[in-house]
Amino acid sequence: MAVTTWQLRRLAHENGLVFPPDPGAGEQSQIGGNVATNAGGPHAFKYGVVGRWVTGLEVVLAPGEVVSLGGAIRKDVAGYDVKSLLIGSEGTLGIVTAVALRLLPRPERVIPITAVYRSAEAGCAAIEAVYGAGIQAAALEYLDAGTLTRAGATFPGGLPPASGFLVVAEADGSEAEAERVAGELSEALSEGALTLLRPPPEELWRWRDGVSFAVTGATGAKLSEDVAVPVERLLDIVTATVEVGERHGVQACSWGHAGDGNVHASFLVAPGEPEEAAARAAADELVLGAVALGGTIAAEHGVGSLKAHRLGAQLGPRLLELQSELKHLFDPKGLLNPGKKVGS
Amino acid sequence: MAVTTWQLRRLAHENGLVFPPDPGAGEQSQIGGNVATNAGGPHAFKYGVVGRWVTGLEVVLAPGEVVSLGGAIRKDVAGYDVKSLLIGSEGTLGIVTAVALRLLPRPERVIPITAVYRSAEAGCAAIEAVYGAGIQAAALEYLDAGTLTRAGATFPGGLPPASGFLVVAEADGSEAEAERVAGELSEALSEGALTLLRPPPEELWRWRDGVSFAVTGATGAKLSEDVAVPVERLLDIVTATVEVGERHGVQACSWGHAGDGNVHASFLVAPGEPEEAAARAAADELVLGAVALGGTIAAEHGVGSLKAHRLGAQLGPRLLELQSELKHLFDPKGLLNPGKKVGS
Repeated sequence: MAVTTWQLRRLAHENGLVFPPDPGAGEQSQIGGNVATNAGGPHAFKYGVVGRWVTGLEVVLAPGEVVSLGGAIRKDVAGYDVKSLLIGSEGTLGIVTAVALRLLPRPERVIPITAVYRSAEAGCAAIEAVYGAGIQAAALEYLDAGTLTRAGATFPGGLPPASGFLVVAEADGSEAEAERVAGELSEALSEGALTLLRPPPEELWRWRDGVSFAVTGATGAKLSEDVAVPVERLLDIVTATVEVGERHGVQACSWGHAGDGNVHASFLVAPGEPEEAAARAAADELVLGAVALGGTIAAEHGVGSLKAHRLGAQLGPRLLELQSELKHLFDPKGLLNPGKKVGS
Repeated sequence: MAVTTWQLRRLAHENGLVFPPDPGAGEQSQIGGNVATNAGGPHAFKYGVVGRWVTGLEVVLAPGEVVSLGGAIRKDVAGYDVKSLLIGSEGTLGIVTAVALRLLPRPERVIPITAVYRSAEAGCAAIEAVYGAGIQAAALEYLDAGTLTRAGATFPGGLPPASGFLVVAEADGSEAEAERVAGELSEALSEGALTLLRPPPEELWRWRDGVSFAVTGATGAKLSEDVAVPVERLLDIVTATVEVGERHGVQACSWGHAGDGNVHASFLVAPGEPEEAAARAAADELVLGAVALGGTIAAEHGVGSLKAHRLGAQLGPRLLELQSELKHLFDPKGLLNPGKKVGS
């Protein structure tokens, strides 16, 4: 039976542990899906994505053999790293039937810090300051002006009227360590900030989980895009999201995992054909924009069928060919999730 | 020009940073080699092996095309994870010509703690206590009785006469955090310990780096083996090393990265054919013993040509076949480091 992310998180919690990556939609998303997409989440900034915590996989390979990759071992260079090839392969190379995960002791204390800025420029400068100071935050998130307009009303503690950019950082560890890192974060984030808050963690993350729904609710539908760029290009891609939307006559906003340069862009549409086509064109332009900035067309939500045709733009012809060859090697009859990840 | 591990470490140090994995033999080993073997080291316990810190690779693929895998991005699921396939492939899939690495800010403080026990049983129980308490040590190493006999004389601070097992742990972080973790380590390691010390880090690690030479010097030559098992089987493999040696008439000892279940076994021989054959047979038996314990034939030193014929014992026929198919896909003419990793 499938285990949801939330079930795993609860089980870990009851045993004083955590599953450090925290993919969203925990009640719907399943561990198999987390592995299939190599999912991330806010705390991937400190702890890395799901794949880092997978020590073993049980996989059905075509035409129908069950194999074990890795196990309860922490180092293994026997053979090529087929486990990592399967992680993030979106069900196109084999079917993952069991997963062995590493967990960590739950941190004694978690301190979120939020900082509001007038503009994306000021906010991104603060994010770079956190980086430059080498502060090891557990999470480093952002939400842009358009997102705050649509989802900011329920922000715990409220937002000042001129809020143009929100940074959410988090410190964790022992009591003393979390306080120390929180102090460093407060100092780095205070430059140019309108307000600096320490909201209660549960309230903050519940609000953060609801942002996507609030933004969708504003128009009734949205097309979501997931790209990543080098962190120093964050401002470029945040700005580009709004500009690309304007060019296509579509309202756009973004939020995401700033510390990982990972942007979730939303192109907002009323349900209906013409607008959806415009949003799709805008999303496609943004994806190519991420590649032009040295980034990726897909950071943590997978490639699926919608972006498979843009793989070549990022990888170039030789690596694209290699992808097809790998797909063919594992799945010569093309039976496994056809059309996804690498196209047909 | 090749960059040695030591050059990278110095460059990082000069900039207030560290390259968290610390493969040994830093003056000889090169970054390309570290990536080719997915090397580890003592601090891989907390920080993971080299592959975790590689964000991008420049690789020459057969028949002679230069490609870039990844880059300065921290998340990327565009296509299958070919980067991880190349890492640890021992030069058999492509030639790595450039590497992009993530570094971390240098920890403010490093506190090694050493604990001496009468027996491997007592020492391994202490290691399990560290695990059970969820203490996030930076390193968790061991050296067995036979190793201490040959290399213990120069241990900083000296060793008591009945020393049968040495545990080397390390705490790192901010001043306060390192002290806190060191306190936890001292408590967990004190049960059953003959002595507990805090030697100066430089002296300790310089001694630890020299252990291999000291052991070799005892007889003139040794055959070294590198395997890993689930951590709870550490005592089994430590004991097995000595027993396997006895069965083959070869002196044996071991040390390694206890926290990763990673054992470096040494079979000591005077240079000369008959003894070397016995050592080789002993090493082979140990490798199969690691597999029987749910472990791996190769943890961090690669498979090379000596162990390629044992890959099937660990992987089984289907995965072994897949390894050959992957090799053939990348290198159809078999030109790249032939005979290594997956055999011929």
